[in-house]
Amino acid sequence: MNNRGSKKPSFDLAIDLPDRASRQVGRDLHRQLRAAIVGGRLQPGLRLPASRELAAALGVSRNTVVAVYDLLLSEGYVSAHGRGGTIVSDFLSSRLRGSVSPTGPRRDPRLCPAWHTPALTPTGTPRDCRFDFSVGIPDCSEFPFDVWRRLTTRAIRAASRGHDWYGQPEGRPALREAIARHVSFARAIACAPEEIVVTAGAQQAFDLIARILVTPGETIVAVEEPGYAPLRNVLMAARAKLAPVPVDDEGIRVDRLPKGSRVIFVTPSHQFPLGVHLSLARRAALLEFARSHRAVVVEDDYDGEFRFAGRPLDALKTLDHGESVFYVGTFSKCLFPALRLGFVIAPAWARPALVAAKQFADWNAPLVTQDALAAFIAEGHLARHVRKMRRIYGERRDVLEHALARFCGDKVEVVGIGAGMHLAARLDDSAPAATLVQRAEVAGVALSSVRRFPGGGANANGLMLGYGVIESAQIPEAVRRLARLL
Amino acid sequence: MNNRGSKKPSFDLAIDLPDRASRQVGRDLHRQLRAAIVGGRLQPGLRLPASRELAAALGVSRNTVVAVYDLLLSEGYVSAHGRGGTIVSDFLSSRLRGSVSPTGPRRDPRLCPAWHTPALTPTGTPRDCRFDFSVGIPDCSEFPFDVWRRLTTRAIRAASRGHDWYGQPEGRPALREAIARHVSFARAIACAPEEIVVTAGAQQAFDLIARILVTPGETIVAVEEPGYAPLRNVLMAARAKLAPVPVDDEGIRVDRLPKGSRVIFVTPSHQFPLGVHLSLARRAALLEFARSHRAVVVEDDYDGEFRFAGRPLDALKTLDHGESVFYVGTFSKCLFPALRLGFVIAPAWARPALVAAKQFADWNAPLVTQDALAAFIAEGHLARHVRKMRRIYGERRDVLEHALARFCGDKVEVVGIGAGMHLAARLDDSAPAATLVQRAEVAGVALSSVRRFPGGGANANGLMLGYGVIESAQIPEAVRRLARLL
Repeated sequence: MNNRGSKKPSFDLAIDLPDRASRQVGRDLHRQLRAAIVGGRLQPGLRLPASRELAAALGVSRNTVVAVYDLLLSEGYVSAHGRGGTIVSDFLSSRLRGSVSPTGPRRDPRLCPAWHTPALTPTGTPRDCRFDFSVGIPDCSEFPFDVWRRLTTRAIRAASRGHDWYGQPEGRPALREAIARHVSFARAIACAPEEIVVTAGAQQAFDLIARILVTPGETIVAVEEPGYAPLRNVLMAARAKLAPVPVDDEGIRVDRLPKGSRVIFVTPSHQFPLGVHLSLARRAALLEFARSHRAVVVEDDYDGEFRFAGRPLDALKTLDHGESVFYVGTFSKCLFPALRLGFVIAPAWARPALVAAKQFADWNAPLVTQDALAAFIAEGHLARHVRKMRRIYGERRDVLEHALARFCGDKVEVVGIGAGMHLAARLDDSAPAATLVQRAEVAGVALSSVRRFPGGGANANGLMLGYGVIESAQIPEAVRRLARLL
Repeated sequence: MNNRGSKKPSFDLAIDLPDRASRQVGRDLHRQLRAAIVGGRLQPGLRLPASRELAAALGVSRNTVVAVYDLLLSEGYVSAHGRGGTIVSDFLSSRLRGSVSPTGPRRDPRLCPAWHTPALTPTGTPRDCRFDFSVGIPDCSEFPFDVWRRLTTRAIRAASRGHDWYGQPEGRPALREAIARHVSFARAIACAPEEIVVTAGAQQAFDLIARILVTPGETIVAVEEPGYAPLRNVLMAARAKLAPVPVDDEGIRVDRLPKGSRVIFVTPSHQFPLGVHLSLARRAALLEFARSHRAVVVEDDYDGEFRFAGRPLDALKTLDHGESVFYVGTFSKCLFPALRLGFVIAPAWARPALVAAKQFADWNAPLVTQDALAAFIAEGHLARHVRKMRRIYGERRDVLEHALARFCGDKVEVVGIGAGMHLAARLDDSAPAATLVQRAEVAGVALSSVRRFPGGGANANGLMLGYGVIESAQIPEAVRRLARLL
């Protein structure tokens, strides 16, 4: 502390005022005194120097110090005792200062028990391998970002002129109309815009559905085995009773559904992770189960736009006449994941609850992004991009299938080639997938084991090969390296 | 309607644009067209004039009309039929189609009982009154949308070059760093970027906190009375045991907190709706309560940036040394609500659970928006905009306070003038607020009664006057009209 005055204060305030001539000097002094009081350096009961003394000591005007003391007084940090001076208040009990949680961070009793050890999914980072068969990452290099920029700019411009700042929780009417047209064209689902709720990706769709359908500790929810970990995390957090149901070459084993299942989550177009599609017979059986048990089916159509072999099977939503099916769509795969937009087509009986759940969760999706996406769909860019990516992914899938046949022969059995951005390759037991994945990484090939997915262990010894990132030209060499390890 | 063009539209729109040269002309046109559609003067199925015709008829630029039509389109009031023109939507009947009677579909046994009759908050639509004292709507006309457009464009361009498509649930590091700096400057909160979780507005922050802290049917959660309905909705959906605690001129009555309260939601900077701030003595008592009862305090600082009288009191988060406080901030008021971004500063013991809850809820906030906001803060635009709006809101507040004093005298008692974008005016019992609100609307003045807010009935006969929308020049006349009704 600079000490130009004749009298030194009786304690060291450690005040540092770099520019005493500035108009900020009072503010600086106030902040530092307050910090010293809050931080405990100036203890309750301590008498502050008289304003005249402090002003002299700091080389500032007395008025400045008086104003700062007044402010501290009005805030309650100090109290005035007339000629007794200005005293630091006992505004916080000293016990409060510096107390720490004795039980360690995560298991603090203030958290709900269910949240003591949450299962976070690691965020995928690009693999450092030359050949990358990562699953679930679309190729965004072909995305028309210039168009997206233009439409976003237009949406911001429109927003700046309007004044509807909070939106309807179910989403912008123009976007719901565009989505309704898109799904009727892309998935043959006839729905009205009123049936759609716009969500922050499929993840939020799962979460909202779980909220309105799962009574904690009671509701039995069937999921596919193997399946998608982030979905299970949501359901466990909602305290659903999870019932994993095995998947075979026709999809989920409907005959193995527990009788008491109230909600059944499925990926009928392209099972995640195995890639098979749910056969028509199973579709009918599943809907019949739902009808007769008054259960709900949630159809997760995460990459249903990318279907290569023949016409896609009808969506469960299309076949459903019992108002049993929630259809979940996402723009993460057909546009880009950073967008965070998806949607639910919900049965009429569930809509008011779903809309309310969306409002409680985050009020509404960002309006500018919704408007940009509505225009993107309405102007035909989505359909064009999906067509283009279907061709690109289809070509990669062909090259991959041929390379696997050529280099690996009957050492692998390829499944799940009908759609999407990945396939699975079953191995016989002489080649454990986990070991293979490790050795492949050393050879510059990144892929994953089916066992990495929940329930994958019981089901199959297999590899997952995504072709969202890798280019066609790289595939043969990648598969050749893999084949050498078999 | 001014008709300078050669072609007269085929119907009379009765549009009145007093100042065609003003930047407000698009806004006025939009508001009047929308009002005509909502009010039924423009019937569903009607074709609006071509933009060129309408522009000529009104004497405005064609771009203005195109922008207004785009906006109506995105809002769903009209639909575009290519060369078929712009048609007024059947939005009212479609809304009716989407709604269901409370005794019918909502009570479907497939829904959780708690969701049978969800309490949806109506989305605020601009009032059709000349003088609009709506609460909670910021003035976005001064927002630097050109800067925002530029930063968004830049973020999209950067995204198109990178490949991080899924982000960390806690938010972009650059944004968390920018927020940490912002709160240290704006609210004197010292925190590290690691303590911050980026959310979809304050609403999602409440929801995530409720998830990790509320055990359904068990946890007692104290809320302010009167208070904020959407917060209560979230807590009721989480099946918390709500304990409303009265508010007086010093804020929440800490002495009235039930002993078993585990979580306490407060608005200490500017109580919602009454506008008082929590006194320092109460702040200390609240933190002491939290410490001794091992409770958690959630500090909702929804408009704490806009403080007029003296310096803001320290945030509870600043005073807290017991790791008891969650601080919730939002960019809905200081930027614009359509953005849907906010944040939580959480105690260390709660962070892993909060991050997981965010991932389960929607994986992460949209990356482009996060990146644009990070740049907006880092380049100083946020601080500049907050300073500007503080001046504007402060002036409106002064004008409103003086007008109330001049025209209403001792018939009203004004509270909550220290901060934010609204104040409350207490009335004596001879003038019931609800009646006054109705009569004011007839007189062209839109405002609300304190009783509209949960718990408001028990507390006070009063009016809520927001000055986020109304301009200073309009205020005296609005208050004069109001005074005549007293």
